[in-house]
Amino acid sequence: MNEATATLPEVAPAAVCNEHDLIGDRDIPVEAYWGVHTLRAVENFPITGQPLSTHTHLVVALAMVKQAAARANLDLGLLDAPRANAIIAACTEIIAGKLHDQFVVDVIQGGAGTSSNMNANEVIANRALEIMGHAKGEYGFLHPNDHVNLSQSTNDVYPTAVRVATIFAATSLVSAMEHLGAAFAAKAVEFRTVVKMGRTQMQDAVPMTLGQEFNAYAVTLGEDRARLAEATLLVHEINLGATAIGTELNAPAGYSALACSHLARISGLKLETAFDLIEATADVGAFVHLSGVLKRVAIKLSKICNDLRLLSSGPRAGLGEINLPAVQSGSSIMPGKVNPVIPEVVNQVAYEVIGNDVTITMAAESGQLQLNAFEPIIVHSLTKSMRHLEAACITLADKCIVGITAHEDKLRAQVENSIGLVTALTVQLGYAASTKIAMEALATGRGVAELVLEHGLLSASQLRELLRPERLANLRE
Amino acid sequence: MNEATATLPEVAPAAVCNEHDLIGDRDIPVEAYWGVHTLRAVENFPITGQPLSTHTHLVVALAMVKQAAARANLDLGLLDAPRANAIIAACTEIIAGKLHDQFVVDVIQGGAGTSSNMNANEVIANRALEIMGHAKGEYGFLHPNDHVNLSQSTNDVYPTAVRVATIFAATSLVSAMEHLGAAFAAKAVEFRTVVKMGRTQMQDAVPMTLGQEFNAYAVTLGEDRARLAEATLLVHEINLGATAIGTELNAPAGYSALACSHLARISGLKLETAFDLIEATADVGAFVHLSGVLKRVAIKLSKICNDLRLLSSGPRAGLGEINLPAVQSGSSIMPGKVNPVIPEVVNQVAYEVIGNDVTITMAAESGQLQLNAFEPIIVHSLTKSMRHLEAACITLADKCIVGITAHEDKLRAQVENSIGLVTALTVQLGYAASTKIAMEALATGRGVAELVLEHGLLSASQLRELLRPERLANLRE
Amino acid sequence: MNEATATLPEVAPAAVCNEHDLIGDRDIPVEAYWGVHTLRAVENFPITGQPLSTHTHLVVALAMVKQAAARANLDLGLLDAPRANAIIAACTEIIAGKLHDQFVVDVIQGGAGTSSNMNANEVIANRALEIMGHAKGEYGFLHPNDHVNLSQSTNDVYPTAVRVATIFAATSLVSAMEHLGAAFAAKAVEFRTVVKMGRTQMQDAVPMTLGQEFNAYAVTLGEDRARLAEATLLVHEINLGATAIGTELNAPAGYSALACSHLARISGLKLETAFDLIEATADVGAFVHLSGVLKRVAIKLSKICNDLRLLSSGPRAGLGEINLPAVQSGSSIMPGKVNPVIPEVVNQVAYEVIGNDVTITMAAESGQLQLNAFEPIIVHSLTKSMRHLEAACITLADKCIVGITAHEDKLRAQVENSIGLVTALTVQLGYAASTKIAMEALATGRGVAELVLEHGLLSASQLRELLRPERLANLRE
Amino acid sequence: MNEATATLPEVAPAAVCNEHDLIGDRDIPVEAYWGVHTLRAVENFPITGQPLSTHTHLVVALAMVKQAAARANLDLGLLDAPRANAIIAACTEIIAGKLHDQFVVDVIQGGAGTSSNMNANEVIANRALEIMGHAKGEYGFLHPNDHVNLSQSTNDVYPTAVRVATIFAATSLVSAMEHLGAAFAAKAVEFRTVVKMGRTQMQDAVPMTLGQEFNAYAVTLGEDRARLAEATLLVHEINLGATAIGTELNAPAGYSALACSHLARISGLKLETAFDLIEATADVGAFVHLSGVLKRVAIKLSKICNDLRLLSSGPRAGLGEINLPAVQSGSSIMPGKVNPVIPEVVNQVAYEVIGNDVTITMAAESGQLQLNAFEPIIVHSLTKSMRHLEAACITLADKCIVGITAHEDKLRAQVENSIGLVTALTVQLGYAASTKIAMEALATGRGVAELVLEHGLLSASQLRELLRPERLANLRE
Repeated sequence: MNEATATLPEVAPAAVCNEHDLIGDRDIPVEAYWGVHTLRAVENFPITGQPLSTHTHLVVALAMVKQAAARANLDLGLLDAPRANAIIAACTEIIAGKLHDQFVVDVIQGGAGTSSNMNANEVIANRALEIMGHAKGEYGFLHPNDHVNLSQSTNDVYPTAVRVATIFAATSLVSAMEHLGAAFAAKAVEFRTVVKMGRTQMQDAVPMTLGQEFNAYAVTLGEDRARLAEATLLVHEINLGATAIGTELNAPAGYSALACSHLARISGLKLETAFDLIEATADVGAFVHLSGVLKRVAIKLSKICNDLRLLSSGPRAGLGEINLPAVQSGSSIMPGKVNPVIPEVVNQVAYEVIGNDVTITMAAESGQLQLNAFEPIIVHSLTKSMRHLEAACITLADKCIVGITAHEDKLRAQVENSIGLVTALTVQLGYAASTKIAMEALATGRGVAELVLEHGLLSASQLRELLRPERLANLRE
Repeated sequence: MNEATATLPEVAPAAVCNEHDLIGDRDIPVEAYWGVHTLRAVENFPITGQPLSTHTHLVVALAMVKQAAARANLDLGLLDAPRANAIIAACTEIIAGKLHDQFVVDVIQGGAGTSSNMNANEVIANRALEIMGHAKGEYGFLHPNDHVNLSQSTNDVYPTAVRVATIFAATSLVSAMEHLGAAFAAKAVEFRTVVKMGRTQMQDAVPMTLGQEFNAYAVTLGEDRARLAEATLLVHEINLGATAIGTELNAPAGYSALACSHLARISGLKLETAFDLIEATADVGAFVHLSGVLKRVAIKLSKICNDLRLLSSGPRAGLGEINLPAVQSGSSIMPGKVNPVIPEVVNQVAYEVIGNDVTITMAAESGQLQLNAFEPIIVHSLTKSMRHLEAACITLADKCIVGITAHEDKLRAQVENSIGLVTALTVQLGYAASTKIAMEALATGRGVAELVLEHGLLSASQLRELLRPERLANLRE
Repeated sequence: MNEATATLPEVAPAAVCNEHDLIGDRDIPVEAYWGVHTLRAVENFPITGQPLSTHTHLVVALAMVKQAAARANLDLGLLDAPRANAIIAACTEIIAGKLHDQFVVDVIQGGAGTSSNMNANEVIANRALEIMGHAKGEYGFLHPNDHVNLSQSTNDVYPTAVRVATIFAATSLVSAMEHLGAAFAAKAVEFRTVVKMGRTQMQDAVPMTLGQEFNAYAVTLGEDRARLAEATLLVHEINLGATAIGTELNAPAGYSALACSHLARISGLKLETAFDLIEATADVGAFVHLSGVLKRVAIKLSKICNDLRLLSSGPRAGLGEINLPAVQSGSSIMPGKVNPVIPEVVNQVAYEVIGNDVTITMAAESGQLQLNAFEPIIVHSLTKSMRHLEAACITLADKCIVGITAHEDKLRAQVENSIGLVTALTVQLGYAASTKIAMEALATGRGVAELVLEHGLLSASQLRELLRPERLANLRE
Repeated sequence: MNEATATLPEVAPAAVCNEHDLIGDRDIPVEAYWGVHTLRAVENFPITGQPLSTHTHLVVALAMVKQAAARANLDLGLLDAPRANAIIAACTEIIAGKLHDQFVVDVIQGGAGTSSNMNANEVIANRALEIMGHAKGEYGFLHPNDHVNLSQSTNDVYPTAVRVATIFAATSLVSAMEHLGAAFAAKAVEFRTVVKMGRTQMQDAVPMTLGQEFNAYAVTLGEDRARLAEATLLVHEINLGATAIGTELNAPAGYSALACSHLARISGLKLETAFDLIEATADVGAFVHLSGVLKRVAIKLSKICNDLRLLSSGPRAGLGEINLPAVQSGSSIMPGKVNPVIPEVVNQVAYEVIGNDVTITMAAESGQLQLNAFEPIIVHSLTKSMRHLEAACITLADKCIVGITAHEDKLRAQVENSIGLVTALTVQLGYAASTKIAMEALATGRGVAELVLEHGLLSASQLRELLRPERLANLRE
């Protein structure tokens, strides 16, 4: 039972056209915009069954790069206007969301992205041929490699498109994080005066407010968002014009600058050409860095969700500090059970992102000499990480955080009943005497204040001021 | 631009029926076999856009478990024959591949698999209702929880189904590994007498044969296959009957044994009920173990593919020992370039599997108290690892290994020209004198044999016998 | 401020002897048993400052291998009795714990273990020379390579010694796990009748006993111990006699079998020679496998420690189900605070082991062609994992588990007060009606039993029997 | 055979003084500067046998923090001058390198660093007591907690000290990377005109120069250095004054600012107090980030070393493009073999760093509520990563890169003989015709130029200019 299914339609023998590559001839269905190179790739990489078209941002970015290249080639007189305009028009259609179903190569592929680039070249060439009034496959008029790929190599086109797609996805994730951060910040205001016990190492420590706790979540996500934005900046450096290995072979003088400026305009991004194109062509450091930051975001989200599941444990035999909104029945056997399913799904996305980071690490480390052949798995992993984190942030905000309520009375009672209050008395009593009071409270089940009074260590009024929860929590009133 | 798309059809307001859960009422499209719990889950987990139906083995396994439970409930008089038979018939359809499109919850989900179980309960209940002559949603006649889920909990059903599905996938992978191993073994025979330089630490060492090298690949894969088969055995231990936390609450005496034996018969697998159901319900050790073995397989495949890419490097400035069959054009800019794209895609699958192992590690470590809430991401990761490794093995065998050829003459010349030959003379000459010969050969570019002769250390006939490549390679003739 | 300090003593110019290698001459302090190859290695690898001598098992195992080789060489007439006996005597001293301070190369080293092997060759040769009545360095009488290393290569000696050392360490770890398992099992008996709420997904589920919970820990560790013992068996396969790349070059017929049987006797281990020595020389699969199992052990220990920290949270605002023994003051500022420091240190060892597994994965995947050059980091990582896990198991048992006490009354009260009790009534009431009761209990804070009575759904005597905690927990009385 | 040895001296019964903590009384050897809390910790954490003193930077940083706190306490009138000055003097001694052997707690410890802080408090108190003319242990005059730890908590002191120590180590690593980068840059100049074949996917691509290749290494390390410097900046944010959970309980107004400015002056670092102390106390994001960057550095170093080992493979059956300097004999059995041991050791350090990153990831994700209890393993892992990377960079530069030589003639010949040259003709000939030429060259073993001439596609002079290696390599002359 092989579960991965082929992504190509059956080819009816009558409706084909014949194409040629270095291996031989192959029939291509007439309705297909892709050609022989794409066909080979589909047959060579039957791995996931997930076609490139599912990486929407990348398909769009490939079309943007091809359009930028065509404009640069037109400017430099390398491509005549009819061909250039047809290519540009075909790319515009893809950018607008058309023809995506023609991007059929598997997302995990050998060849350092060559098959993705070839798939783009062929789809654009065939659509451009139609626009020019020719039939698909009449490559004599406009050729996937000689014209669509002119002045280009997979080794500069693919990394550049990947960078553009990555910026789109990362920017979208930054927004989602902002949305989540705002949800936490709103709760921080709502819970501003809700006093509770802070905990260290799972043990009662000293008082704080629930608002401070939620505010810390907002703050920490804000820091991660800043790091993500910085890491995304590094991805703006492209190697378009580098061609095969960064020596700019076959790309005329001025091409790389022109292509970059066209691409910047088309994409709306502040792209820059890398200073050393040889280094830039071999290097995937920016992706490693970005993935490291995504891992950091995942760690934070997971930590926060661990806290939320802990604080909402119960309803009766748990910490029961807060209540998460019920979003579905929790159990097929235990009626009325409500589980923290939203934090749980976020945890799982976090684990996936952390695993993806290891995948990316291995792929990056394995790059050899002038090119990293494993960029497709890097891209696939990064894309999943960003997309799933984005969904996780929005889901967490909308399905969980906004509906959280607090058990205020219970929380205040725990503070007043806590042994940790003794910490506030060490300045007066010293560490050794305070330890004795704490041990006595623990052994007898009695309160810190009453023991201090009983031992005549402080007066009642002193105690009242020293142990006021708002003072202890450093709540600026 | 959010790329993850919803997996539910638009609901036309006229054609719905109304269902209820602990949160409230919801409309369900009449054509749907799933119900309100599934709907909630789809809305709660819009993470990957990949529905449960893509995990074919798991959908089938869920139906097998439900069928086994229904049979056990029938045997024990807990379920009447009409209901039991309707459930059994509905499950049979799903096992045969029908209704899979009704398994619409996301593969990454909170709730420890509850939503997958609920989805199964609802689809089976609604199909069984139809079989009984009722309309979908008439749960008064047959209820997803009270009847389909009778004597069960997600916490025993889901892990059990996951185990069954895992065994199916692992068995399939073992076959694929066998196929790949056979391809290497055939090449080992073909290259049996092809003498070449062995290398350690990337430096020329001593002679061997290409057959020995390929045979080692077959042997090493064989060992991994044995480990994988052993690890799969551990997965045969199930917790069906444990119900919520392993105390068998609500499952009558005898149920777990009966259900296990029915499931064994239905699935054709030698399943056994775990000795300690409380431990078994919380534990995901068998999955961690299996993933560890899959990682081992990935490491081996990646190492082998690294070797293949190295040995086939060239065509003129590389090692050029072997030739991999061309399966597609290698470059959009460099005509005639042929790249090792098949080994490259296998490397990438290996990196993915290694990353998945970290994801599984984190999910396993994060399980708390009586249940691991993160089994869905474990299952998803394991499934990808097994499925992609299987595809990788078959692709590697069929698209690459079977077509490998050797550059025999070049390989023999390298042996004869090597400095490593001196190793064979150390028994006669000693380490210190041999080192001198080696250094002189390296400095002058001359051959080891001629230098030994020139220095009068050994006779020509001694040298001839000592340095015979077949003797050095320990080739049993 | 470079923190790594050199491990070699200052050499007083007068007290040296001169040695030679392929690079040139070097002075060696007269008191040193190591020679020029060791000196080079110490200078080349100033990485950790941690000398090989800290890997006690490996130093002993190297001496055992050298002794076995000397005996085989003596048997085969390749080594005369005086030299063989001197080597054997020197090895006996090292096995007994002497001269370990002479193993000075860094634990992280290039060269696939060559420097460790050379260090052993030199120390043994120089000590053997003394035993024979010669001065250190008089290699004319007995040479580190020609005699101590006779019929050997680093590439069979080092992996073999590593395997022997690994078996010693793994066996020791198995004992420590048994010790810990016994501590949990004893507590399981002690807590046999302590009823408590079981939890799934951090939410109250259904009743169980604390004894069942602790018994599950004992069971799960027992399973891991079985897996570890199995994985250790795989390490018993050695490649001694393979020499450089597995072709047995320079090792006479019969040598590998003889050397293996001597080593088995000396070490007391059931060692076997690998079937395919070429595969065995390149392969590190057994170490990958073992590390995977160690990771599994780490995951389990970490999960258990997470549970212990959770269950002992408090003292007043936590779950407070159990009490861990106080072993030190918990805070420099909060008097009387007691923290779960022993579980915390075990968690950290677990994280280290999981990281080590990734290190080992990368090192294993990077092996090329006929040898894995990165075995030293594999060994170093495995050694740390096993040694720290062993210390963690014993510490956890002795400093924590044996002293755990339970808050029995609180636990029983939580069961009686729980909403999860309703699960036990679903067989009688159905899922929908039970859900209503649960929701009402949650909303009103009232008990399940009283609500069921109030609604007239069951009689008091029915309820009493159905809700008896011992019945719910499936406690066999 | 337990290999981890105790780090405490045997206590002679006569020479002890008695100390007390919440568990009871213990004897402390009179010569020890540590006290009962340290003793408990040593007994509780017998994990690695590696004492805190080996983390030199951290011991120094702890003393700096304690000194800064004492100065702030003095300024605020919380501590009298005699005590403050004695504490300050004791800290000065530790900063100068004295008393480090008194830091005896294990580097892996439970308690979130409490034991490290307690160890510092006790050593400083006892030394300060001596300075004041009292005996060690006379805590009535100056108390480890009440005076040395005044206004502090482990939860602000330890993270602050860790940050200071991390900055020291990271700064040192940046210098080492600069040293290595300079070595590559020097070689880039030396090899500026050495033409060679560039390779993508292990296959011959198009020409470049060896200088360009080495320059790319320098550039890529420069980028990583910049990232590392940025990440180190983030570590400058401290939480001193936060006390237990960030609410500044027991730290008077103004203390945190004062303490930070004193610490900045003492350490010479531009430290800043975090904006939100509650977030800062729980958060380890800066360490996660730094570790992610260290992983990036490790990936780059490993990739470069992989390249070096590949390019220097041979001497006769490998790529043999460059020659690495011999630094030791390569084999115990193969005379004259020289191995790339320096790159190999760097690879292994890289694998360790990558594993450490996973350890840090797990420890960071597991932090709960107001504090991460697992900072000790984070610190230990980070310290190893930085220290070993530093050693690796310097070793790689000094023992390998500076001595690399190139086989210029061979490299040029490979360019002239390459099929990749055809790429330079595609602008003139088109992709399809060029592919035919390439395939013919491959099949016949002939040269591209001669085939182009034979087919009359271009003139000899055209070819000469088009195929000039320096032009192809884009060498600006």
